[in-house]
Amino acid sequence: MVDLRSEMKRIKGLVDAEIRRIKAGLEGPDDLVEASFHLVLSGGKRVRPFILIKSAEVFGASLESSMPAAVAIELLHNFTLIHDDIMDRDEYRRGVKTTHILFGEPVAIIAGDLLFSYVFYILSKNYPPETGLKLVELYANASNLICMGQTMDVLPDKYIVSSDQYLEMVYRKTGALIEASAVAGGVVGGASEEELGLLREFGSKIGIAFQIADDILGIVGDPKVTGKPVGNDIRNGKKTILVLSALERMDSGSREKFLRVFGNPGSSDDEVMEAIDIIVSTGAIEDSREFMKRLYNDSINALRNLPESEARSYLMEMARFIIYRDK
Amino acid sequence: MVDLRSEMKRIKGLVDAEIRRIKAGLEGPDDLVEASFHLVLSGGKRVRPFILIKSAEVFGASLESSMPAAVAIELLHNFTLIHDDIMDRDEYRRGVKTTHILFGEPVAIIAGDLLFSYVFYILSKNYPPETGLKLVELYANASNLICMGQTMDVLPDKYIVSSDQYLEMVYRKTGALIEASAVAGGVVGGASEEELGLLREFGSKIGIAFQIADDILGIVGDPKVTGKPVGNDIRNGKKTILVLSALERMDSGSREKFLRVFGNPGSSDDEVMEAIDIIVSTGAIEDSREFMKRLYNDSINALRNLPESEARSYLMEMARFIIYRDK
Repeated sequence: MVDLRSEMKRIKGLVDAEIRRIKAGLEGPDDLVEASFHLVLSGGKRVRPFILIKSAEVFGASLESSMPAAVAIELLHNFTLIHDDIMDRDEYRRGVKTTHILFGEPVAIIAGDLLFSYVFYILSKNYPPETGLKLVELYANASNLICMGQTMDVLPDKYIVSSDQYLEMVYRKTGALIEASAVAGGVVGGASEEELGLLREFGSKIGIAFQIADDILGIVGDPKVTGKPVGNDIRNGKKTILVLSALERMDSGSREKFLRVFGNPGSSDDEVMEAIDIIVSTGAIEDSREFMKRLYNDSINALRNLPESEARSYLMEMARFIIYRDK
Repeated sequence: MVDLRSEMKRIKGLVDAEIRRIKAGLEGPDDLVEASFHLVLSGGKRVRPFILIKSAEVFGASLESSMPAAVAIELLHNFTLIHDDIMDRDEYRRGVKTTHILFGEPVAIIAGDLLFSYVFYILSKNYPPETGLKLVELYANASNLICMGQTMDVLPDKYIVSSDQYLEMVYRKTGALIEASAVAGGVVGGASEEELGLLREFGSKIGIAFQIADDILGIVGDPKVTGKPVGNDIRNGKKTILVLSALERMDSGSREKFLRVFGNPGSSDDEVMEAIDIIVSTGAIEDSREFMKRLYNDSINALRNLPESEARSYLMEMARFIIYRDK
């Protein structure tokens, strides 16, 4: 059995050292440099770089060759977080103040833009043309999808009405980049088209499962472990697969009761617990868990068709970790 | 003599048709598609695509081969404008409401991000690897510089104190992308390294001159022609090369008088005229004009060393147009 936790820690150390090196080499206004790297250097598990590096390793690629693509995908992810936090007016993330709170909104917008620009700069400087341009296409395509998913997410009343639309949003906003991480690893490692298809299947499925796991924790997670108050997602009116499929099944009495609490920040703890009970009674949580497990199984089956290797075992463990985590 | 005006119109027509085609092919939330293309389809002279296309034509490249890079550079430019307008809280541009006013700030941020992402997507889909990755590097490098210039521009008290810092800001914010337009044309046309160097010289110099021409019009332009009220830049406290070099030369009495008016939106027309007279009396306007003409001459001399062609004549005319325009 591979030791996922210590390997993740090791990879995180290497990725972070590389990110610090890039920051140190940037010549530009201090405020911009600090703002751009504030969030990425205050935490994060480096899930995407890990998936990328291990996917490349399956095909024998060295860490040296996958590192620039891995760093680039982490910067891409952090660019989206900086801009999302501005849109959502969030004041904290990873336990620290968000970029726009610390540096002001204008500099935070530019900080996100600079990270995004740097993603492509890194790819252009570190790969031979054929590999480099394939990575650019992959990252740009994922970014296009993220923008679409994020738009759905900021206009839920218009774009997230059914659970299918929710899943489309989740694929675009979260799945597409995890998919790109796996495929990019394959591109760096010189995988065949068929193998890239398997990585795509693995990444997209586990990426969607990742979000559904989050959604389940948001409703029934232990607040002592997740660090988020019980029923946070209920009070915030967060439309997740659980809520949408529960709503599709409630009778009109339950729905009326539920909608009085859902999205109402002033709801009492008792009301929130009652709303959660209503969701549970529809079977939506069990069904979402089942759905997540099917995604997990599909992703594992895709991995099984890749060359057997320690790296592949790490990817399988990572998939398990994504599904069975408690925070 | 080539007819710049009608050729610019012709190129604009072709570029705009291509931009419309891209918009029509985008599958995503309506709001995002509309927001992303609102600004770019409400006007603009397509200066950057023109420079790119003509620079490519100097080396015999077809319009077909330069068009994707030309469209990409225009989208890149418009991405920066959408985000700048949010930062500056501007409500109008090109006579229409800005993107964030029409679509709200969250969607406007994403609209800029999508255009930026699409820039690299277009490059990755339309060029062979070697050319494509060179273009990606060029565009990403220009974008890095734009982010730095924009940061200086939003924090002028910290980063724009001397006229040298101002010129650095202008190169980054405006010069770098016009430089990239010219160089990208050369890359598409297969220019030699030496020829790319000449295009770099042409583009960067004319790019800085472009902004200085704007700054001069902002102080002494005819409001009936520019469409902007007299002394707009004075009342807004806009630090330009003219103001910075004038300030470096004023005696303490004039400076005191000037600073009472500069950046004071409530200044009367008489006070503004007096402030302009103070700038004129320092010789800063004449000196800025001289400086701009030197940049122009350098850019023309660089062009003279490129292969003689109709396309080169258009670039020379474009340089003249940039310097001698009255709005």
